[in-house]
Amino acid sequence: MAHGFGAEYLQQRIDREIAIARHMGVIVESADDAALVLRAPLARNANHKGTAFGGGLYSLAVLTGWAWLTRHLAVLQIDADAVIQESTMQFLKPITGELRACLSWPAGAEILRFDRMLGRAGRGRIRLRVTLHQGQTLAADFAGLFAASMRGQRLRH
Amino acid sequence: MAHGFGAEYLQQRIDREIAIARHMGVIVESADDAALVLRAPLARNANHKGTAFGGGLYSLAVLTGWAWLTRHLAVLQIDADAVIQESTMQFLKPITGELRACLSWPAGAEILRFDRMLGRAGRGRIRLRVTLHQGQTLAADFAGLFAASMRGQRLRH
Repeated sequence: MAHGFGAEYLQQRIDREIAIARHMGVIVESADDAALVLRAPLARNANHKGTAFGGGLYSLAVLTGWAWLTRHLAVLQIDADAVIQESTMQFLKPITGELRACLSWPAGAEILRFDRMLGRAGRGRIRLRVTLHQGQTLAADFAGLFAASMRGQRLRH
Repeated sequence: MAHGFGAEYLQQRIDREIAIARHMGVIVESADDAALVLRAPLARNANHKGTAFGGGLYSLAVLTGWAWLTRHLAVLQIDADAVIQESTMQFLKPITGELRACLSWPAGAEILRFDRMLGRAGRGRIRLRVTLHQGQTLAADFAGLFAASMRGQRLRH
């Protein structure tokens, strides 16, 4: 394993922490310093038309953002929970095969800004975008504002 | 049963058409001409902190909007599928008990506008808001743009 907080680590966290993830069949396909991809089979997340249920697409997208931030915090050895605060999602085309959610990697400046907020105030927020495709076509587009708060109380002077 | 397209009808549609709904334990609490409420137990939709998973809250909210539109189409005897096109959701407070999603009834003028679009063009769109509370406090706020297209091809002159 190239990294202590890769796909295997996130798979364990998701399976342990998110009750519905097993029923959805969520798989962490890749999680490293350049890509974060989650997938899930269509059958478990379908509606009767044989396309992906919007709630399932959303759940996979929000888990992808959560996984990125959870991994980022783990790498920094920061004891903090990642939570979603607000989101927008557009459903552009039906998805008729496997659901596959890819994180659009945030700009370095955004990551640094988040780290600085967390270091100074014990809490930070970052906007993360996740996309799902049908073939080569963008089919669903998610943007979420995620927050993390450090668990230990920090003394202020 | 007061109405042919009430809670029982929607429960059957949801259980038959949305694969993950059974795992979530979605219950149609009420569905009539004035209220549409869906609920689901916390345990099946929780994260490890004992609060509701954002993806579960979203799924319940989108199902509530879908259920309202599905019921509306059934009452009008229109053969059309309801689908989500875009959405925003805010997560304001953690939910630590049963998930309960209530439709904010659309204004009569909005419903009439939708019906007119559907009648004229064979497809219509309507914005629906769904809220979830923790005790008396608004905890999650969903707004979705739903669309319906009539299944039969309509001839145009």
